[in-house]
Amino acid sequence: MSAKIRIGIAGYGNLGRGVELALGQNPDMELVAVFSRREPKSVELLAGNVPVYALDTIEQYKDQIDVLILCGGSKDDLPKQGPHLAQWFNTIDSFDTHAAIPEYFAAVDAVAQATQHTNIIAVGWDPGLFSINRLMGEVVLPKGETYTFWGKGLSQGHSDAVRRIDGVKAGVQYTLPIEAAVERVRAGEFPELSTREKHRRECFVVLEDGANADEVRNTIVTMPNYFADYDTTVHFISLEELERDHTAMPHGGFVIRSGTSGNDVQQTVEYSLALGSNPEFTSSVLVAYARAAYRLAQQKQFGAKTVFDIAPGLLSPKSAADLRKELL
Amino acid sequence: MSAKIRIGIAGYGNLGRGVELALGQNPDMELVAVFSRREPKSVELLAGNVPVYALDTIEQYKDQIDVLILCGGSKDDLPKQGPHLAQWFNTIDSFDTHAAIPEYFAAVDAVAQATQHTNIIAVGWDPGLFSINRLMGEVVLPKGETYTFWGKGLSQGHSDAVRRIDGVKAGVQYTLPIEAAVERVRAGEFPELSTREKHRRECFVVLEDGANADEVRNTIVTMPNYFADYDTTVHFISLEELERDHTAMPHGGFVIRSGTSGNDVQQTVEYSLALGSNPEFTSSVLVAYARAAYRLAQQKQFGAKTVFDIAPGLLSPKSAADLRKELL
Repeated sequence: MSAKIRIGIAGYGNLGRGVELALGQNPDMELVAVFSRREPKSVELLAGNVPVYALDTIEQYKDQIDVLILCGGSKDDLPKQGPHLAQWFNTIDSFDTHAAIPEYFAAVDAVAQATQHTNIIAVGWDPGLFSINRLMGEVVLPKGETYTFWGKGLSQGHSDAVRRIDGVKAGVQYTLPIEAAVERVRAGEFPELSTREKHRRECFVVLEDGANADEVRNTIVTMPNYFADYDTTVHFISLEELERDHTAMPHGGFVIRSGTSGNDVQQTVEYSLALGSNPEFTSSVLVAYARAAYRLAQQKQFGAKTVFDIAPGLLSPKSAADLRKELL
Repeated sequence: MSAKIRIGIAGYGNLGRGVELALGQNPDMELVAVFSRREPKSVELLAGNVPVYALDTIEQYKDQIDVLILCGGSKDDLPKQGPHLAQWFNTIDSFDTHAAIPEYFAAVDAVAQATQHTNIIAVGWDPGLFSINRLMGEVVLPKGETYTFWGKGLSQGHSDAVRRIDGVKAGVQYTLPIEAAVERVRAGEFPELSTREKHRRECFVVLEDGANADEVRNTIVTMPNYFADYDTTVHFISLEELERDHTAMPHGGFVIRSGTSGNDVQQTVEYSLALGSNPEFTSSVLVAYARAAYRLAQQKQFGAKTVFDIAPGLLSPKSAADLRKELL
């Protein structure tokens, strides 16, 4: 058997822990080190069998790691870390600020081309697997419409917005697709759907002692950008209920391509995810793409890449012949 | 604007007509000729604006066609045509005899490598898009099970089997997934499902005058390989009803990957198709992969390929930059 692909993790939050777990399901890869901005001794790994190093010492480990998986956030971490770490490493990241992808791609690509690394950006499920299905949908049904629905799922950004409100001690926000809209799309109606018609929002809020529930509710449902354009339901619950019922991070959604072929024959393609843990699933996708990055680097196919550039076969530990025999 | 990709069609049945229609939705490609084993003058095209030539004269058109789409059958046509035509053309085909794919791939690949052509085999939805989803499912959820369900759809092979029975004037057979089984898979139960538990079969039969309905029904439901292992319902109808209600060729199905990440967290990925016309959809997939074959040939990436070897971006008429901006 050939040597294992040596993986490093940069950033050890929910995503980093998910990558550690996912590597346990992929025997052709091994975790060799975790890098953190925290004091390394304070970082407790789930398995705890590899060293933790300070992120600012990472350069000295560049020959010991085949692919570095960046597990930082898209807002503050990746815009700097992605291009910076591409000078020493092949990387995978889950950059998910859709509007900033062209700029981020260019920044990573410039470094990757100059230093001969393979760096796959914006990996995960959206962007990522959903993006692939948006693309496949429009190439196989050029005459049609693509609809993306999210949820039921916990939205980190919206939960943060709720928690910043005066009087809120804790809270979470779920995004839910509106089933009637999904059904209209599936039925081939090609509906034009407003924001409010596609998704609704549900908040579970723990109030500070003495806070006014009506005021908090009103602040939430009228909040511009976050809630004003949606029908939002606010439930007030106890801290105990929050901790008992709302600590999982489920998510999911649908990409539906509804189109017509030939003489107006209806054709529908649907891709959906029902995820018990959003970060663990995202991590699992990152790990699969790490395998592809390793192989492309071996083939000297350097530069920034996205999921659109990766042939499916590169993601599997199986040989091309076995894939054709077993899965085609 | 660059020149259009010049497409030829070899074989003008349901699939060939579907390709002709699909090309009308893809303005970066143009149909330049149709090749048939029938007398060319007897072949009436849907649009009728390109020449029809005898298939055995095809070699002389090799410099006028960028990609030839093979629309023959997997049983009798493609095993010979695929390797034979790969000597002169880049090709796409929908070879769908799963068990014979390794052998067919090898035969096409030998010719393709020697003559420097790009030949993508086994394109369509199964094998094809379903295969991609079987692969993606197991790479993102290595610990899990993949389930493929087909239907509701018209099965050509089973319809033919029904029509060969004495006393049957005409008939069609539909394959249907058993919803209870699909729901158990979606619920993360990881069921072990027998053939009978996954699909059922429904036949609509027109009897010859004087035929015995009970005998025909019994012959159908006990037929080895085709029906004996399934719960099969037989409906006797008139020829008028058959022609009114059963001439469309719908199909579809589901690929579901049910798995667990991390500490036994349930994760489900589902891909489904609901197709008004099976041949028109398959044709549309063939046309998208013709674009990829053309590009790979331009890059001198010769040889037999499958959908596993094709990066999604190669399928789209859009530039890589536009894809990142619009669809990622």
